[in-house]
Amino acid sequence: MEELLAVARGARPADLVLRNLRLIDVLAQEVYPGDIALCGDRIAGIGPGYRGREEVDLGGRLVCPGLIDAHVHIESSLVRPREYARAAVARGVTTVVANPHEIANVLGREGVRYMARDGERGPLGILLTVPSSVPATPLATSGAALDHLDLEQLREDPGVVGLGEVMDFAGVASGRRQLLEELALFRGQIIDGHCPGLGGHDLNAYAAAGIVSDHECATIGEARAKLRCGMKLFLREGSAARNLLDLLPLLTSANERWLSFCTDDLNPQDLLHQGSIDHLVRMAMAAGVEPITAIRMATLNPAEHFRLGDRGLIAPGRRADLVVLETLQGFSPRHIYQSGKLVSSMGKLPGYQGGAGDFTEPKGLRRSVNLDIGQLDFAIDARGPKVRVIGIVPDQLVTEELILEARTENGLAVAAPERDLLKLAVVERHRGSGRIGLGFVRGMGLRQGAMASTVAHDHHNLIVIGADDQSMLSAARAVIEANGGLAIAVGEQVLELLPLPVAGLMSDRPIEEVAGKSTNLRTLAQQFGSSLADPFMTLSFLGLEVIPALKLTDYGLVDVKRMQLVPLFPED
Amino acid sequence: MEELLAVARGARPADLVLRNLRLIDVLAQEVYPGDIALCGDRIAGIGPGYRGREEVDLGGRLVCPGLIDAHVHIESSLVRPREYARAAVARGVTTVVANPHEIANVLGREGVRYMARDGERGPLGILLTVPSSVPATPLATSGAALDHLDLEQLREDPGVVGLGEVMDFAGVASGRRQLLEELALFRGQIIDGHCPGLGGHDLNAYAAAGIVSDHECATIGEARAKLRCGMKLFLREGSAARNLLDLLPLLTSANERWLSFCTDDLNPQDLLHQGSIDHLVRMAMAAGVEPITAIRMATLNPAEHFRLGDRGLIAPGRRADLVVLETLQGFSPRHIYQSGKLVSSMGKLPGYQGGAGDFTEPKGLRRSVNLDIGQLDFAIDARGPKVRVIGIVPDQLVTEELILEARTENGLAVAAPERDLLKLAVVERHRGSGRIGLGFVRGMGLRQGAMASTVAHDHHNLIVIGADDQSMLSAARAVIEANGGLAIAVGEQVLELLPLPVAGLMSDRPIEEVAGKSTNLRTLAQQFGSSLADPFMTLSFLGLEVIPALKLTDYGLVDVKRMQLVPLFPED
Repeated sequence: MEELLAVARGARPADLVLRNLRLIDVLAQEVYPGDIALCGDRIAGIGPGYRGREEVDLGGRLVCPGLIDAHVHIESSLVRPREYARAAVARGVTTVVANPHEIANVLGREGVRYMARDGERGPLGILLTVPSSVPATPLATSGAALDHLDLEQLREDPGVVGLGEVMDFAGVASGRRQLLEELALFRGQIIDGHCPGLGGHDLNAYAAAGIVSDHECATIGEARAKLRCGMKLFLREGSAARNLLDLLPLLTSANERWLSFCTDDLNPQDLLHQGSIDHLVRMAMAAGVEPITAIRMATLNPAEHFRLGDRGLIAPGRRADLVVLETLQGFSPRHIYQSGKLVSSMGKLPGYQGGAGDFTEPKGLRRSVNLDIGQLDFAIDARGPKVRVIGIVPDQLVTEELILEARTENGLAVAAPERDLLKLAVVERHRGSGRIGLGFVRGMGLRQGAMASTVAHDHHNLIVIGADDQSMLSAARAVIEANGGLAIAVGEQVLELLPLPVAGLMSDRPIEEVAGKSTNLRTLAQQFGSSLADPFMTLSFLGLEVIPALKLTDYGLVDVKRMQLVPLFPED
Repeated sequence: MEELLAVARGARPADLVLRNLRLIDVLAQEVYPGDIALCGDRIAGIGPGYRGREEVDLGGRLVCPGLIDAHVHIESSLVRPREYARAAVARGVTTVVANPHEIANVLGREGVRYMARDGERGPLGILLTVPSSVPATPLATSGAALDHLDLEQLREDPGVVGLGEVMDFAGVASGRRQLLEELALFRGQIIDGHCPGLGGHDLNAYAAAGIVSDHECATIGEARAKLRCGMKLFLREGSAARNLLDLLPLLTSANERWLSFCTDDLNPQDLLHQGSIDHLVRMAMAAGVEPITAIRMATLNPAEHFRLGDRGLIAPGRRADLVVLETLQGFSPRHIYQSGKLVSSMGKLPGYQGGAGDFTEPKGLRRSVNLDIGQLDFAIDARGPKVRVIGIVPDQLVTEELILEARTENGLAVAAPERDLLKLAVVERHRGSGRIGLGFVRGMGLRQGAMASTVAHDHHNLIVIGADDQSMLSAARAVIEANGGLAIAVGEQVLELLPLPVAGLMSDRPIEEVAGKSTNLRTLAQQFGSSLADPFMTLSFLGLEVIPALKLTDYGLVDVKRMQLVPLFPED
């Protein structure tokens, strides 16, 4: 601090002075000429008259604060935090508020801490919200839980800014004691929300509980009602859910301060090729949002929401997270400084860092798939002429419950790919029980082969879908032998495997390679007949027992509205 | 919380439902019809469909959130917090952020806590910032100091929101270690600033130290520079300093979120007859500020600055601090609800609460004037033909240093009221030392008599100014016998006395009575020849040894720029 002040008052030379630039003042929404003097990872001063040990002439270019993603699940990009950092920072994103909800369901508290520690090795400010509702329900077996004591401890961890999206909105509105205790723990910090479609008195109750944001709005009306209830909004545009253009007409100069951007979930190819928050800024500009307003929604607004007085603005004492632009329109970052260091130029990613890191990884991080291949048995005894089937609604997370004719062979109920009836299995993979839930799905569209994944929200058991048991076994075995991953197989042949050995959720390979395999997996699934936009993503939500109507867990089929297990054969 | 949620979701009747009203949404800057359901001190829900044990029809009137004063010294109103509360809340002010800087210089930590506890008895949300720089310098004797340990303890007190205006801006900019440690204590909380006229590199250093606000701007240019450095601004309009109209042209829809209102210091008559933040809202509206924007600068903006997620907006879960208005223009509150209770209607003040309260007052609170009247001796041995004189600059806090002919009688230097040369004494009143600093003043204008006060920033010793020693003695004696106060006397006759027995700073009588006496004191001083707007206020700053150029403390004359004692007779 003493050195920072000495540089600020001009008594000592700065580490770096950026000269000949136009500073984007996102508060005043003005551009003005001025130098920026840096000291370590901070901005020491702005304006004329600073000397530096190093000085860089920016040729009159624009400089804005580094972008902030208000809500993201890093795990969705299938790479480790340090690797996510490479791709995000090359896009001008210097801070993300990550909710490590997926790894928390696999490894609990130590999984959350792993994300923080691994992230420290990358060129990105990763702040965390503590995952709430881990596990989602008792109707699936997760690898770990976060209990009251875990939350209490995680709350105090460095880099933790609050409680992550509180998803059990019905439980909050009805005043469930355990949830209220969870909320009480985080009183005084930020408590982010997640309440798709909530309105009326229940929305009032959810807001009254102290939940201060939402990122699940689908319509302007829903968004307005939430703002009136005192909730800030993160406008989302991710790989799985795209709401930005629907919601932008909401924006006025009055309410803009409460609107930020988030990606929520980005697959590796979107992150790498389309971008992160920079993509949302460009979309907003293209939709007619005044350019500095669009930048402010990606900088100052999320900084203020999360009380990050150390970023979101180019001002003395704040972090030297800076994006150098050619022009405002089009938002194309030329150079990125993160914490005072030049980390990317002309879109080039910083260097890949392999290896395990200089810290102790949590026990089980790379051995999270506890499954004996010999236990796998996907046979279903035929107990009746009709089966209860999960009906996929294309590119949505909700499903329908269907009752369809079973196909029976030798006393077994089997897949009937010619009428888009595939077999689905969820195999408990955390505790070695080998427990298997079995069912059928319509809507995936595979005419042959099978897909397997250890990414299966929220419990992340092994989920396998296929046209025949042999293909399912091949895909499942490939994933198990890789200690987690995504695979597609036909018969005994594995056509593609993306190993995800880190908690069964993330690769430790470069994102370029991961994105390539991920694209290949999708293409293969589509070649086998799936017309879904992202077949593996859809698969990963077929086990999520909190989104209606019918889902499959290792315990079997779950009727989500009644929150209870139901038999596969309706007559049972 | 359980009950609040039950009311919010409509499962239980509200304590009170306000019906048939137009809700002022300060975020959206809209007015919309809707009911407000209250539960205890909170808003449970907004919108239709709520039932209440009590229901009030507001006849289509407007309702806005209670106003917030971002920075005030309650002591300046010469009444106790609970009494200040009566007057403020009748104006629609439901929250103040008070810096108990004056009492801290008399009674230290326990004085600060007294303000909080006394305030709890009044109908006003009083939040505190912890006074910094107590005492101001070692060149005066204060009653108490706040050391590192005090600050550390006060920081954790309920209702404390941060560190109060850090006034030693030169010390901050130059990186004085003790100050940096003080700032470090409050990292993560709000650290308010005070840096009149600061600019350039020193302003950068002050902001880099983590100071996030200022309320001392006098010009638009100064204000813009501070905003660019990341500091929020409180636009001030008080009894002593009036900056609002000069600064309003600064306002744009872009920067408005960082602008709030504050009064800083209000004398009792202004508070009672002109108002508090409601007055600033009216001034802003009259100056052309869009009405809901003006209200937002007095509600949501200060709430967000101080991270008060529980107020500033009419929304579920927030405090039921509500102002019922007839029309937007003119901002004339009709009914005020504070914490769910109707506390004022049609401008009527809530009931006066005399007595000491149900808590233990700090030792010395009502015995803070430790002075033996026999010790008082205002005689000055004449040591030369010329004296160093404090030159008052009308209605400003800065003074000039003058060298003038002394008037000598019997070997003593005496006042010469016919050429506006009055005697000034500062008598140490905390520790019983009876130490007296003596000097002369030009600019007060009294042709006869004397004024005495135990309000003398920041040390609050007894300060006396007069045309003759007998009048000074009479005024001083009256104040000492009252255990503090303000008095004016001629010869042996005391013409008016306003007792301030609470720390020598505050009355325990109703504000109506205090305002009457305060007005009378001013009128008398003006009748005796003073042409100053507020002679007692000017007197109270003649001892403040941190504002240039020449001031008097119990140690003698202080040359503020050199920060050292200087002799009364220049030849010494």
